[in-house]
Amino acid sequence: MQIALWLVSLLTNVLLLTAFFIFVAKRGGLAYLSKKLQQVSHPDPNEDFSHVPFYVHRLSQFELLAIKPSDIVLLGDSLTNEGEWAEFLSASVKNRAISGDTTAGLLQRLEPIVQAKPHKVFLMIGINDIIRGVRIEQIVQNYTTILTRFRTDSPSTRVYVQSLLPVGDRRYCQKMRSTILEVNQVLPTLAQQFDYQYIDLYPQFTNPQGGLDPQYSQDELHLNGKAYDRWRQLIQEFVVS
Amino acid sequence: MQIALWLVSLLTNVLLLTAFFIFVAKRGGLAYLSKKLQQVSHPDPNEDFSHVPFYVHRLSQFELLAIKPSDIVLLGDSLTNEGEWAEFLSASVKNRAISGDTTAGLLQRLEPIVQAKPHKVFLMIGINDIIRGVRIEQIVQNYTTILTRFRTDSPSTRVYVQSLLPVGDRRYCQKMRSTILEVNQVLPTLAQQFDYQYIDLYPQFTNPQGGLDPQYSQDELHLNGKAYDRWRQLIQEFVVS
Repeated sequence: MQIALWLVSLLTNVLLLTAFFIFVAKRGGLAYLSKKLQQVSHPDPNEDFSHVPFYVHRLSQFELLAIKPSDIVLLGDSLTNEGEWAEFLSASVKNRAISGDTTAGLLQRLEPIVQAKPHKVFLMIGINDIIRGVRIEQIVQNYTTILTRFRTDSPSTRVYVQSLLPVGDRRYCQKMRSTILEVNQVLPTLAQQFDYQYIDLYPQFTNPQGGLDPQYSQDELHLNGKAYDRWRQLIQEFVVS
Repeated sequence: MQIALWLVSLLTNVLLLTAFFIFVAKRGGLAYLSKKLQQVSHPDPNEDFSHVPFYVHRLSQFELLAIKPSDIVLLGDSLTNEGEWAEFLSASVKNRAISGDTTAGLLQRLEPIVQAKPHKVFLMIGINDIIRGVRIEQIVQNYTTILTRFRTDSPSTRVYVQSLLPVGDRRYCQKMRSTILEVNQVLPTLAQQFDYQYIDLYPQFTNPQGGLDPQYSQDELHLNGKAYDRWRQLIQEFVVS
């Protein structure tokens, strides 16, 4: 009887460990595991995205698509990436956002955009920094570097600093919301220092509880058509002016 | 000694099972599990995407963005979705592809596109059907229904049926490649039946081993900028003609 239990327990061990190894192996094996562990323990503010196919693929598209001095460039993460902005706004709006991007990631791919000297730039980035646990000081420092690059190397570009948007009530904890609000408190002052326009979108997307209004999202983070239409309304005057 | 081993074995089981439950719970619990099991055992040819936030969000954008009779509409999955086509081709090109979409999914969202009576439609869909294990007969039947809808309700729309693209050598088995080739063998005849143009892209993206050329992808499935530029070259004459 005892031996039977022993065997069941061992067999379960073997099965579960096998499942675990298959799961890890399918995602890239030890490299995946060590990366995951590292992400949890020490979020790297300079993490590179060279092992994220979507990121690399999208960046390689950008390299082939020119930005004209009359263009309006949108910079950011999935919230911007997933919008069909050229249709919502105008054909001169170029989507240069990449899902998953962080302030550090944007900094590393910023040079060709600054060099193209676009007419206007709309910026919204930082939610992935917060999800990864990057410190606020680091986020603000990266923002400062981004804005400095435009101010110095493309002084005629008008940069619009957009607030971070709210996330939902359930999936994301209160701590994440308070961090978003902390970043949003710094951004207007920062924009003003560079003489750039700040656009506060946050209160336009909240429900009475202060989270992302469910009418705008099915996953408490990403946005639906109604949200993009609202966002469009809120920035249109700055796009056309 | 035996009891110590017993305890280690039991503890390992408890830890692994806990990890498994946390993993499942984070993804939606039992509903997620039953959906996954169902997908593996019986791929549903009529699966709906109402629980996939990205799909729902993107579809709700399309509902707000009008298609004009002079527009060129791209229909498909991630391969089309991830391309900045309006920039690669022209502002009249409207991206109506959704990452993850299948022939059945496209069928369910086809009506407003047919009703908009666009000038041209470029179609590439089916790789997700194959990944999910949908039978070839079902894929071909869905293609037939899609083409019939255009022929019947928007006879002036010129539909371009594009071949499926190759996938890589390693991750996807030989079986998947042979299924892709089987679908690609049916498509030209099908397009001809409806008097639509067939565009064979497949051999333009293969390496000598017959898989997706690594110069075009970092994950053996999705495409980089170089691939989109090649694809653009191959369809441009049909877009502008």
